[in-house]
Amino acid sequence: VRVEIVAVGTELLLGQIVDTNSAWIAEQLAAVGLDCHFQTRVGDNIGRIRQALEVALGRAEAVICCGGLGPTQDDLTREALAEAMGVELRRDPGLVAVIEEMFTRRGRTMSANNARQADVPVGAEVIPQRLGTAPGLICPLGANGAQVAYALPGVPHEMQEMLTRAVLPDLARRAGEPAVIVSRTLRTWGLGESQLAEVVAPRLEALDAAGPGAPTIAFLASGIEGIKLRLTVKSPDAGRAEAALDLEEAELRRLLGPALFSVDQPMEAVVGGLLAERGLTLATAESFTGGLLASRLVATPGASAWFVGGVVTYASRLKQSLLGLPEGPVVSAAAAAAMAEGARRRLEAAVGLATTGVAGPDPQEGHPPGTAFLGLALADGPAEAVAVRLPGDREQVRQLAVISALDLLRRRLLGHDHHSIWVVGDDSPAQGSGPAVLHANGGGSTTAPSGR
Amino acid sequence: VRVEIVAVGTELLLGQIVDTNSAWIAEQLAAVGLDCHFQTRVGDNIGRIRQALEVALGRAEAVICCGGLGPTQDDLTREALAEAMGVELRRDPGLVAVIEEMFTRRGRTMSANNARQADVPVGAEVIPQRLGTAPGLICPLGANGAQVAYALPGVPHEMQEMLTRAVLPDLARRAGEPAVIVSRTLRTWGLGESQLAEVVAPRLEALDAAGPGAPTIAFLASGIEGIKLRLTVKSPDAGRAEAALDLEEAELRRLLGPALFSVDQPMEAVVGGLLAERGLTLATAESFTGGLLASRLVATPGASAWFVGGVVTYASRLKQSLLGLPEGPVVSAAAAAAMAEGARRRLEAAVGLATTGVAGPDPQEGHPPGTAFLGLALADGPAEAVAVRLPGDREQVRQLAVISALDLLRRRLLGHDHHSIWVVGDDSPAQGSGPAVLHANGGGSTTAPSGR
Repeated sequence: VRVEIVAVGTELLLGQIVDTNSAWIAEQLAAVGLDCHFQTRVGDNIGRIRQALEVALGRAEAVICCGGLGPTQDDLTREALAEAMGVELRRDPGLVAVIEEMFTRRGRTMSANNARQADVPVGAEVIPQRLGTAPGLICPLGANGAQVAYALPGVPHEMQEMLTRAVLPDLARRAGEPAVIVSRTLRTWGLGESQLAEVVAPRLEALDAAGPGAPTIAFLASGIEGIKLRLTVKSPDAGRAEAALDLEEAELRRLLGPALFSVDQPMEAVVGGLLAERGLTLATAESFTGGLLASRLVATPGASAWFVGGVVTYASRLKQSLLGLPEGPVVSAAAAAAMAEGARRRLEAAVGLATTGVAGPDPQEGHPPGTAFLGLALADGPAEAVAVRLPGDREQVRQLAVISALDLLRRRLLGHDHHSIWVVGDDSPAQGSGPAVLHANGGGSTTAPSGR
Repeated sequence: VRVEIVAVGTELLLGQIVDTNSAWIAEQLAAVGLDCHFQTRVGDNIGRIRQALEVALGRAEAVICCGGLGPTQDDLTREALAEAMGVELRRDPGLVAVIEEMFTRRGRTMSANNARQADVPVGAEVIPQRLGTAPGLICPLGANGAQVAYALPGVPHEMQEMLTRAVLPDLARRAGEPAVIVSRTLRTWGLGESQLAEVVAPRLEALDAAGPGAPTIAFLASGIEGIKLRLTVKSPDAGRAEAALDLEEAELRRLLGPALFSVDQPMEAVVGGLLAERGLTLATAESFTGGLLASRLVATPGASAWFVGGVVTYASRLKQSLLGLPEGPVVSAAAAAAMAEGARRRLEAAVGLATTGVAGPDPQEGHPPGTAFLGLALADGPAEAVAVRLPGDREQVRQLAVISALDLLRRRLLGHDHHSIWVVGDDSPAQGSGPAVLHANGGGSTTAPSGR
């Protein structure tokens, strides 16, 4: 079954909202092996919604419409689908009652407009609403209902719930094909994109030689989330697909070593898991990342078990008063190490992690933008610091400093020595290379005395 | 001139990348008054790129293709355009030399693949590359070149530079229409969406009655950036357009009062500006927002003039040791006020701003998720705290707490009293309402003693 996505909403066409719904839907379709060759965005205009539907139905068997199911006169997806089906809309009194009850439960009165959400094209099946007021629709189209159009709300969590509950199962029934496509994403940090490609090259060749049925590998550079390797396999059954992925993951783990930090898990969750396992607590000291490191840690479920807190010493004098640094340069390996040790002691944690550096646009203390020093203090030795050079604008430099600091802590908790430390830099003018480009570098690490 | 956007890339179709380019292009087109009724995404497949082009050229006079100009065999936009034009691709030796030189300048050798980026459909005009290696293309199509297709790289900053430099001027020439569309976005915080609509209703009626040529008003709820009112006007010349927006802005300012916090400027920049004007410095103390408040402040250009730093006291004991709070509940108005006062004193700033609350999913100290207390300490009086109820998931609750805390500080710096303080809550199950739904509330503020 070929599926197309039609996202409806004038705000999308005006660029006021980025269409994240289509990307999410596309990802789900790919995961279950359904082809999606085209995606269209169209405004709140009944003629043009119909036109988009017609073009899509000329190329595909199924169309997922997203948006335009709200209560206002602007919301026209229901009307366009009824026109495409050549039927009338009828108000479903049962649905009106459900919507009315949703308002009552929240202590509010339903406005007359909201009853529009109970309008159903004759012959369409309703997907009951659970999270919002708009029901979804399954609309048979074409000769003998050989084609289908789904209507889903534009509110992301409502759309996602309905797609998972009703649309994907319905599509699977129509597809009737037993094949599944399963993906697994390995995340890496510490190797540049081109270097990663070199390391992985033997596997790419082996899989190519193995021919159809073998997993495929795609590279996805995504900045703060690391450089990802996405393995995908199509197989008649899920068990065989998982087994093929297990085998390939093992091969890649062997090649990548400590650069592979997780399967489908963010860096902060990996670090949190390692700290929790070891019964360690963490405190942070941030200069130019300004709380970004702490806020990522706090966003991790269960963080209160291992994260105690942090300080943001944006003004230099606070590095002295809050963390006990001596007077002197604040963008340096010594300062980073002393900040980490200060955070560890003053916040009474087992581990201290620190960032200082230059986000740009101007140099600071003679260092160019993109320079960062990452400090780490553990209980059993002197604090250390690592220098990295990070590409990108202010925001990206900060983001990359945060994942680099977390990776330093991860590697130390796993017992890797200095030689697995890296320097980050821009390496290629080639188009399409992602933002995070890293060079491995046997060294680059400095052990500095703790600053007190 | 009707324009369509065709974004090319299999990673878009698989949902691995969200298509932010189309939204950006759409926004630029809307700003200069060009209609864009459809946007399409298509994979790296020459037949399907051609199909998407044909459909688009069947509806519009101009098509902007974005992506597929990279150096690899996957990059097929050049080939598809040549086919659509019915011409051959010819390698331009001048362009090859430019690309080669870009590599040389960075101390690298050009790979043979990169020469593909110098392939130009016969009859197409080249848009010289400035930031990356791929040149853009202007391809005449249709009878007498009445239609046009542009090809731009998929790397956002390269695409943006070329669109602004070459595509928009070319489209303006083709449009030949002297009208401009000018927009201005007023940002508000403290009124719920429905309440905002009520307040603004008299202007909507007046503008409706004024008929064509009058500005239009659109509501955009965007969480952390506040609820926006976007004024748009179409006029024969820019001066008249700006004058019409000035008049309308004045009317809205009168109605909205202190809820209007800026024109096209984020909350943290407004707060920073007020602090700088008054020569005040700010320190933060964060519990459940975990550094998010500090990191937004640090991201503001010029922040070092007024932001000194902050503490993230995620563990309760740090509220005592770092901020001097007494033992006791940490999710309370008294704790928020004491945290603000503690930050102000310990970090030696003129102003202390604090957050404590429950992000969820579980309640804490008897408070449901979404409860937040915002503390503010100024030099000239006791610290105060304000209670708010915030809708959404963990991340959204944190984000809304941050903008609410900043808005509290903004209002106090402007001299507004307690009666302009608000309580935030979920108000409507209606689909399409944005995440930030706020209720004005004459009160809700608590003055608590500073915690020492």
